[in-house]
Order: sequence, then structure tokens, then C-alpha cells
Amino acid sequence: MTHSIAILGASGYTGAELVRVLSTHPDMEIKTLTGDRKAGMAMAEVFPFLRHLDLPLLQRIDEVDFGGIDLAFCALPHATSQSVIRALPSDLKVVDLSADFRLRDADAYRKWYGKPHDAPELQAEAVYGLTEFYRDQIRRARLVAGTGCNAATGQYALVPLIKASVIDVDEIIINLITGVSGAGRSLKENLLHAELSEGTNAYAIGGTHRHLGEFDQEFSKLAGRPVEVQFTPHLAPMNRGILATVYVRGDGQTVYDTLSAAYAGEPFIQMLPFGAAPSTHDVRGSNYVHVGVAADRREGRAQVFVALDNLTKGSSGQATQNANLMLGIEETTGLTMAPLFP
Amino acid sequence: MTHSIAILGASGYTGAELVRVLSTHPDMEIKTLTGDRKAGMAMAEVFPFLRHLDLPLLQRIDEVDFGGIDLAFCALPHATSQSVIRALPSDLKVVDLSADFRLRDADAYRKWYGKPHDAPELQAEAVYGLTEFYRDQIRRARLVAGTGCNAATGQYALVPLIKASVIDVDEIIINLITGVSGAGRSLKENLLHAELSEGTNAYAIGGTHRHLGEFDQEFSKLAGRPVEVQFTPHLAPMNRGILATVYVRGDGQTVYDTLSAAYAGEPFIQMLPFGAAPSTHDVRGSNYVHVGVAADRREGRAQVFVALDNLTKGSSGQATQNANLMLGIEETTGLTMAPLFP
Amino acid sequence: MTHSIAILGASGYTGAELVRVLSTHPDMEIKTLTGDRKAGMAMAEVFPFLRHLDLPLLQRIDEVDFGGIDLAFCALPHATSQSVIRALPSDLKVVDLSADFRLRDADAYRKWYGKPHDAPELQAEAVYGLTEFYRDQIRRARLVAGTGCNAATGQYALVPLIKASVIDVDEIIINLITGVSGAGRSLKENLLHAELSEGTNAYAIGGTHRHLGEFDQEFSKLAGRPVEVQFTPHLAPMNRGILATVYVRGDGQTVYDTLSAAYAGEPFIQMLPFGAAPSTHDVRGSNYVHVGVAADRREGRAQVFVALDNLTKGSSGQATQNANLMLGIEETTGLTMAPLFP
Amino acid sequence: MTHSIAILGASGYTGAELVRVLSTHPDMEIKTLTGDRKAGMAMAEVFPFLRHLDLPLLQRIDEVDFGGIDLAFCALPHATSQSVIRALPSDLKVVDLSADFRLRDADAYRKWYGKPHDAPELQAEAVYGLTEFYRDQIRRARLVAGTGCNAATGQYALVPLIKASVIDVDEIIINLITGVSGAGRSLKENLLHAELSEGTNAYAIGGTHRHLGEFDQEFSKLAGRPVEVQFTPHLAPMNRGILATVYVRGDGQTVYDTLSAAYAGEPFIQMLPFGAAPSTHDVRGSNYVHVGVAADRREGRAQVFVALDNLTKGSSGQATQNANLMLGIEETTGLTMAPLFP
Repeated sequence: MTHSIAILGASGYTGAELVRVLSTHPDMEIKTLTGDRKAGMAMAEVFPFLRHLDLPLLQRIDEVDFGGIDLAFCALPHATSQSVIRALPSDLKVVDLSADFRLRDADAYRKWYGKPHDAPELQAEAVYGLTEFYRDQIRRARLVAGTGCNAATGQYALVPLIKASVIDVDEIIINLITGVSGAGRSLKENLLHAELSEGTNAYAIGGTHRHLGEFDQEFSKLAGRPVEVQFTPHLAPMNRGILATVYVRGDGQTVYDTLSAAYAGEPFIQMLPFGAAPSTHDVRGSNYVHVGVAADRREGRAQVFVALDNLTKGSSGQATQNANLMLGIEETTGLTMAPLFP
Repeated sequence: MTHSIAILGASGYTGAELVRVLSTHPDMEIKTLTGDRKAGMAMAEVFPFLRHLDLPLLQRIDEVDFGGIDLAFCALPHATSQSVIRALPSDLKVVDLSADFRLRDADAYRKWYGKPHDAPELQAEAVYGLTEFYRDQIRRARLVAGTGCNAATGQYALVPLIKASVIDVDEIIINLITGVSGAGRSLKENLLHAELSEGTNAYAIGGTHRHLGEFDQEFSKLAGRPVEVQFTPHLAPMNRGILATVYVRGDGQTVYDTLSAAYAGEPFIQMLPFGAAPSTHDVRGSNYVHVGVAADRREGRAQVFVALDNLTKGSSGQATQNANLMLGIEETTGLTMAPLFP
Repeated sequence: MTHSIAILGASGYTGAELVRVLSTHPDMEIKTLTGDRKAGMAMAEVFPFLRHLDLPLLQRIDEVDFGGIDLAFCALPHATSQSVIRALPSDLKVVDLSADFRLRDADAYRKWYGKPHDAPELQAEAVYGLTEFYRDQIRRARLVAGTGCNAATGQYALVPLIKASVIDVDEIIINLITGVSGAGRSLKENLLHAELSEGTNAYAIGGTHRHLGEFDQEFSKLAGRPVEVQFTPHLAPMNRGILATVYVRGDGQTVYDTLSAAYAGEPFIQMLPFGAAPSTHDVRGSNYVHVGVAADRREGRAQVFVALDNLTKGSSGQATQNANLMLGIEETTGLTMAPLFP
Repeated sequence: MTHSIAILGASGYTGAELVRVLSTHPDMEIKTLTGDRKAGMAMAEVFPFLRHLDLPLLQRIDEVDFGGIDLAFCALPHATSQSVIRALPSDLKVVDLSADFRLRDADAYRKWYGKPHDAPELQAEAVYGLTEFYRDQIRRARLVAGTGCNAATGQYALVPLIKASVIDVDEIIINLITGVSGAGRSLKENLLHAELSEGTNAYAIGGTHRHLGEFDQEFSKLAGRPVEVQFTPHLAPMNRGILATVYVRGDGQTVYDTLSAAYAGEPFIQMLPFGAAPSTHDVRGSNYVHVGVAADRREGRAQVFVALDNLTKGSSGQATQNANLMLGIEETTGLTMAPLFP
């Protein structure tokens, strides 16, 4: 059975990535694409790489007829999703890719995003979209909140370890290197090729990145008490990919065994051999996650390494995986394409 | 019905690309992988991006049992394919990705490759693998010779024009920019990131590139008399992609109309609007070809632009497309994945 | 003796490159920097790579006191230079890096830039800044017009050949690959790292690029009759560098000998051995030009290859070289830094 | 007064970088270049970017006459320097860029480099070449050992802090991102453009990188007791540049003030404003170091960020700075070229 899909905000990178993924999905069909500023245009004009597809024209959201749509992906900018989703038919299944419903707590939202939430009742309803850890709730959810791409990467390293109490939750450092597509199609000087290629820098330093809100929320919930990690993201000259290097206190082998056990049945998470380091090169364009663990030369310390593609597993692939669950489709459907290498 | 596939020479880039493409092909199953120097290793060790797949171990060619294999892709280095293929069961279907069977003429082979051919009888039998122009022969062939990736790109610009006699065949210049994966997994200083990124240069200048042998062969055949084009390839800091900028004498609009007519029913060839230039960004990782045409400010002169991915449409995607035909599978099966952007 | 320098429009790439070059120039001192939108800011804020220098703050042009300034570099956007320079003290030496004074003919300016020129009297006065061919006039000039970076590259391949009548001027094709800094610090989607890295495309196709105005002007003057070349620029994922591949009709060895003779005494132009191809990697960040020649396999045809750095020799290095001449400083002063490799 | 210089091992990246730096040094002249495997070749053949220079041919070390040479830079591979330097005239000043004399302790050398040292008596004599902290000893030294490029970067973050006892030496994590030229001109698959561009990975994980030997040596000496840090290097797709992100326990403002005071008079070290993050883009090709500090959201924790160019300040620029001191030349001579941006 084919499900009818709408993508709201299809003119950004996560919207385009959804179209890419869904273009070979056997059980979903794109019926509606919106893009307010580019309404009336063909996707082939906005994204020539999609030229081979037969797609509906972009239209304005307020022109969409949602009758007949089974599920809407909402790939709008942060802070605009909440009012848009509130206005959608209340029985429409929605996977939101913005930051608007990631934080369940109204105060936490205000703290990290600097304004009150416009749809606090939906905040409570939304299920956090980290598939491997919220699978059952997602299956039953009407509204799923896609996670931050950095937040997802860090959590793949840490959730099973905190759950199993094999590391010290007060001594966690998440060091992360991310590709530039995570910043979206924004026109900023530091995202120009001339200024970004051939160099690297940290940003949002000192514990100011908004994805910390997700870490705090999820890790505190698991630990049963407030947990605050350290987190420094870096921008590297690559278009896709996130590598988290997570410094933990705990026994390296135990850390490895705990993660291996937790991910044993997971279709998209690949444990590397103990002591091996994953590379973002090996997951590009795919929904796969590579996880490695090393024991440090200092006893009782270890590093966990997680590599994934921020646009696929970190965003639009994750969204599709969640939509599969919500629509009763087999979870991996349409998502088993191999990474692109070289 | 699932066909059983062998990939000979799976430890290079075209071999790995075949595995990537076939990993989601519904009607082919990889039964055998060879790699003489890496025999005994798992593909996950040679190419960690394939870690999620359940693949046979690499073995030595002489250890392979070809009973039960329906088709073999031969992705071995140039000059080694000819003796290997000669030794295969004579009823085994073979798609060769090397340069060994591209030239039908023994003298031409000796001229461009500097040695006599070891299997001249197979040279005569092999069908040239440019699918759109040899479709019927490929369907009936036992041995198909994959084209040079540069040669394919140039021919997509020119074959319909020469066929229709709308350009002057004595005044053709093929200027080409290619990504680095075309050079294979070779350890050479000029292919190091430190020496290749952030710059560009021409190579094989003055009409010395071996793919000229293919241009000469195919264009002369079409024109009914010897045709020699000028051809200058350039290496640019990108991993995948070829852009051919072809300077022709002819009317721009006629050139555009001729190509549009020729490619009207082709599933993988996309004509851009007249006057638009394609980009290799928009075909990366896919089997699609983007074609553009511009009339020059000087009357009677035009440029044709062709963009494709050298590893997919220029090599392993083309090979799969040909294998589909040879095995009676629908031609586009397994090849409709969208390009990866950004 | 130290000369006092003003840089008008110091907040763009050519302005910053002037500061870089002049920072170690023994005979020039930067006294004034302007940047209207960034007036009041320190260069270290606009360009942190200049943090180690003790520089004047950026100010508005209308606040500048030009008394005591010996020479002004004008690195303003195209079409804004003409009125600014008209308003400068009439005895102030000026090197303009914009396109405003490259074309001597008012009609040609209108044709290529789409508007009448605001200072036609200065158009007539300005000397075209291709140092090697206008050295004597530049030495005596008050106003020198920096050339287009692509235009300079093509001319290094062709001027001596047209002068010596060793090629057919009606059969010239300039194929060019350029880095992205030539587009300036402009916020455009196609200049984002995510959209520009790892791919290439032609632009301004069919003979529409404005630098054709310079080719037409200079080549027609040399040939004594109208000359129109074909010219196709391509954008490659590199920040600096231009490679021109110029297809000419003429004897390869004669072409090589003519260029070798013309450039024998030139301090910045390096002839490669006959048959060798230059690389933009080898000139990055320097004022040097590498020139190569190959005879084509087709008799009577040859290719000339020219590599230079668009920001240095193609713009700010050229400007400094011209300023040296205008101020009576030895021509190479401050410009002999080696290229940066890797 | 001009000093005569020999560069032993000029055919690698650090050798070439020495030639680049010295090519505009007013007080040093390159008299001898060696490269055993490339003996007899011109540098223009080995490194075409040096084509404009008039340089001696490469020769074999055993053919060199060291009479008249004032100082030799030894840029040979690790483990080969020790016997070469032992055989040099005992009064020749030497700056070694290899790892051979970085560790003063014979056991430490054996531990990190896996073999006994061939010249232990020179190990004791060699001065560690981190200029800012060994300036006086370097001035008087005959043999100076260039530091590891990663080791230098980490030490710029930490030496003043450990000296001033403002951080907990048992809780130091050095997370580092490095460009690829640090690996030298080695032919390895993971250094190919096709495999390195557009992705990132950690390497030498778990505390196995040899530069840890330098950290242990220097930090333990400063602390007066054994200190072991955690250190994880990452490879990013850039040719030059190292960014160290150092996690420390201490008050952010105190950390900033301590570093600011320590580097107040240093010509090459630039402190950014408190809370600002440096970028490797801003030091490329230069001898400058950019240092930033952020207080973490968790009290008593801070991050120090250090950016430098591994080939210049991390290797050949440092070597030149040390050579200046050893020869009685003003320390910054020849080293004030601005970074290359973009």
C-alpha cells in the first residue's frame, strides 16, 4: 500500500534530502511540496539534482489540501514549525525536522531558544524521534520531533552507557566535528567555500550550543537526576557527516560490551571492532551509524566514537525511519542504500 | 528471479561501486568477490563503508567456481582483463569494466595501449558498452566492454550530432574536467589530498589520452571516414564527476533540437533548457546524465555540456545497466537512486 | 623612501589581499583603509587573518584626508569606482582594481556593463594594467586599470602570439577553470561550500562573460582588425587559481618559441619545458605565472596553458606591481614571495 | 651578513617549506640541498612551485662539503636523522625537524619509537625547540630539536597554565584536528584525495600517538611530577593547519589572563578576545599562532583553543625562528609574512 506524503519546507537541504530518500521508497509517494518563497517553482529549478523526478510544483502551505495526505514531514526553519503544525488537521501524522518539539519542557525551550513556545500543548504530545530508544512510542505517535543531528550523534555514544550505569555521568565531554550542511542553505560569509574549505574552527563554545538542551533532557531522564555534559562542536570542510569523540570515565572493554549488546539487533548501527575508529567517509549519504570504542592509556578512561551523516541518519533518514514506524511500514524500508564512497 | 553475480577485482573503486549499486538491486545477488592481493579479507576491511552488507569474502580468481554464476563483472586493471576473461567459461556472460575490449581493432589497441592484444578473437566479439547507442547488440551480447568514463561523456555530447550530420566533424574540441576517482586507488603523489585539493591542471595533453582511441573508433564509424577530435582532460579537486565542454561548429538551436530528439525516450539522460549549463554536483552518485547546449556569440558555433558521475554512469552504473539488458531485466532496475546533494 | 598608501574598499577579498601583500612591502605603508559598511571596525574583526598587523581602522571614504597619500588602490565593486575616482584629488595616483576603466571605449563599456560610463574622460586616460605589455605607459600613468583576472590569464597565452602573427586569430578558444575567490565575498547559494565543493560547472556560457570585452579590445588592437574569441569559464572547487587552456591554430614549436622569447626577461613569468602542463597548485598565493605549450596530435594545432593566482597576479599582486612602477620603486619589490604548497 | 645554509632532506614537505620560507629571508642563503633518492634533480622538478628560484641541485648527503656551511636544517624521516647528524662536523649548527631528538630520555625514546636511540649522547645535548619557552637555551645551542607539530600546538595551550599552577594537571584532555600535510608526502590510501576529502576520523586513539612522549616530558618537568594527558588527534580534509581544543579544569578568566600575560611580548602569538574561537584559516602559511579561551557553562572548567600552521609554526617556520636565534639574527626575520586567506 502506498502512503501519500507532504513535505512542508522542501526548498532547504533537509527537505531536498527527504525527496532524495523518498524517491526510491516503495511505499511512500510525494503528493505535496511546499516552499513559501519559491511557490510556483519546480523542484528541478530549486534543486537541479532532482531533475529526473516527476514531482508536484512547490506551493504555499496555506494552499495545501491535506485531505488524502497520510503523513506530513515538516522541514521548516526553527521556530516556524510550531505554529504551522498547530494549524494542521489534528489527525494528520507529522514528523517535524525542526528544533521546535525536541524539548518537552516549556522552560527548557525558553532557555535554549530565547522565546516562549507557541504550542506548549503539542510539546507535551510530541515523541522524541531517536528511533532506537523511542521505537514503541514513535509507533503510536501522531507527532514525532526529529532530533538535533549533533544531539543524535552524541546520544548514540552515551544512552546505553548511562542506562547501564557504566560511566560517570558527571565527567562526560562530547567533542564533535560536523560538516557544513548542518547549517542549512544559509547565506553567511563563514559558509562560503572560500572561507570554509581548507580549515577548521570550534563554534558555540563554552556550552552554548542549543543541542545541549537535548543532551540535558535525555541524559537527566536516564540518570534520574540533573546531568550536564561538556560539548564543543567544530566545523570542518566537508558537506556531510558528524563525528563525535566522546570522553568518558569507565572501563573501555565494559563500555564496548555495553554498546555492542545494546546495538546487537539494530539494523542501522554498526559496531566496529574494539579499538577501531570510524570515519564519516564511510557513512556518507546513508542511514548507517558506525560506532567505535577505545580504552585510554589512563585506566578507567575511554573514548567512544560515533560517525553518521547529519542529513540522513541525523535528519531526513531518521525522519523516514520514524515515518515508516508511524505508518506501519517495515522500519528499514527505503533506507538501506549503501554509503557513497569515495 | 534473482541472478547470481561475480565481481572480479572487487578491491578497486569500480568494484566497490558495483557492490554499492548491486546492494539494493532487487534481481541480482553477489555470490562471488575476487581480489587477488586481498584474498581472504572481508570487504568491510577493504572498504569499511560496505560494513553493513553480508558479503562473501574476497578470494583468488583461480579459486572461483563459476558454475551457478549468471554474469561476471570484471573490474580488473587494464591489460589484465584480457587473459582472465579468455580463461572464463565460454558461456558465462561478462561485463568488462577495463579498457581491454573497448577497441575492436587490433592495431588500434596496440597503438593506444602499447602492446599486442592477448585475446584478439574476443576483441571482435565484444560489444561496445555505451548503452544508449548499442542497446540491441548489448541485449544479445555475451561480452560487453565498458567504455572509458571520459569517452562516454564526450560521446553523449557528440554521437547524435555526428549521426545527424549537423556539425563539422573536423572541428571538434572536447575539453573535459574530471574528478580524481577516475584514476583509481593508485598511490601517486599527484593524487594525494595535499597535492590535488585546491588546484587544477591539464594532463595527457596534446592528444595523447587513451580514450582518444574510443573517440576515433566511434566517430569515424559514424562519419564513414576517419575523424580525429582534439581532447584535453583536466583534473579538478573533486572525487566524482566529469564535465565535458564540447566546442562544435553548427547551429546552436539545431544542435539542441538534435540532442533533445535523440534523448527524448532515454531514462537516464536529462536535457536542460536551451542555454543552461549542467553541473557535476547534480549527478553525483547517480546514473543520470545532464546535457546542456549554448549557442556561441559567434554564429555557427555552439558548445555542448555533459555532466555525469564517472564511477556510476561512466563505469559501474553503466555496467549494471548493460547487465540488466543481458540478463533480460528491465533496463533501469536498481539504477534510479537520486544523486547525492549536497 | 616609504610611500603612503590608501586602500579604498578594504573589506573585500582583493582589498584584503592588498593588505597581505603590502604588509611585507619595504617601501609602502598603509595609512588609510576604507570600507563604508564596516566603517569604524578594525581589520582584525573583518579579516582575523590580519590580526597580527597594526593597521588603521576602516573609515568611510568621505571622511578620508588624501593629503599625504601617494597612491590609492581602489578595490571597490564594479560600477562604483568610476564616481569615487572622479571625486579624488586629480593629482593622486590611482590603481583601480574594478572593471570600471578596463575598456577604453564608451560603447564597449555600455555593451558589456549595461549602462553608460560615469567618467568617460577618465576612461580615455586610464592605462590598461597588464604590466608586461603596458610597462612604459604604466610608469607614466596617473590612473591604471587593473585587468580582469580571467582576461589577464588568457592574454598571457595569446598577446605575444597575436603580435608575432604565428596563430590564426579567427580560431581561438579560451577554455578556463577558475577558483571561487574571483567571485568576491558575495553571499550566493552557488558559492556556499555545500554547493560548490566536490563539483564543477561552466558559467557565463556562449560568449557572455564580461572579460570578453577586454579580449576583444586588446586582441583587435594587436591584430589591427576586429577579433572575437570563444571563451568558456568554469568554476572549480578551489579558492585561488585560474587555469587557461587555449586552443590555437599554429605550429606548436613556433608557439612555444614565440612565448619563450617574449617572456625571456620577465621576472614573474615562468616558461615550462615544451610539452609540460602547469598547475594552479604551483602559483597559489604568489605573483608568478606558469606557462606551458603542447603541440596537438593534429598538425597545425596547439594548446597554450597558463596558470596564475587570480587574487595575486590576477588582481592585487598585479596592482602592486603597477604601483611599484608608478612610484618609481623596483618593479618586483614586495612581490617575490614563493607560492604556498601544499 | 648572509649565512650559508644546507637543507638535508629537501624533497619532503618540511624541506620544501624551508625553501619557501628561506627564499625571502634576507640573511640566509641556501647553498646545499640534499635528497638521496632524487639526487641530481632540480628542485623545480620535485616541487614545480619553486621553479622561479635559483637553487642548487639536489645531491646525496655523502657528497656534501660542509665547509662554509653555517647551519644545517635536517628534514629527514624519523629515525634516520640520528645517525646522519652524528656524522656531521661537530661544530656545525643543526636544527633537526625530525622526531629524533625531541625526547631527552633514552627510555622514553625507546618506549615511543620502538627502538634504542643511535646517538644518545646527542639526545642529551639537544635543546627542545619550542622557541617561546626555550629561547635562551636555543640561542646557545648547537643542536636544536624541532618539536612535533601537534605537540607544539598542545603546549601553546598548556605550558603557561601548568607553570602558573592554575589548572589541574591530572584532568587535561587535548582534542586536536590536523591537516594532512602533517603526514608528509607518504603514499598511503587514506591520504589520497578520494579517501580523505569530505570526511573526518580520529586516529592513534586511546593514547598511542607519539607526540604524547613530548607532552609527558614537558608537562612532567613543569609540574615536578609525572603528568599524563589524554590526547586524541583527528584528520580533517585540509592541507595545512592544526586546531587544538584543550579541556582544562580551572577558572576561565584566570586561564585567559594567565595566557595573555605569558604571551604579552611574543611576536608570533596572538590572543583573541576572551570567548572567541580561533580558526586555522587565519594562520595558514604563516608563523602566527592564534589562541582563544572560553569558560565552560560548568563552573571551574574551561577550554583553550590554539590554531597554527603545522608546516610553518609547527615545523619549518619554527625551525627558521630557532635558526635565527642560533645565528644571532633578529628572531622574527623572514617570518612575518601574513597568512594566506582565502
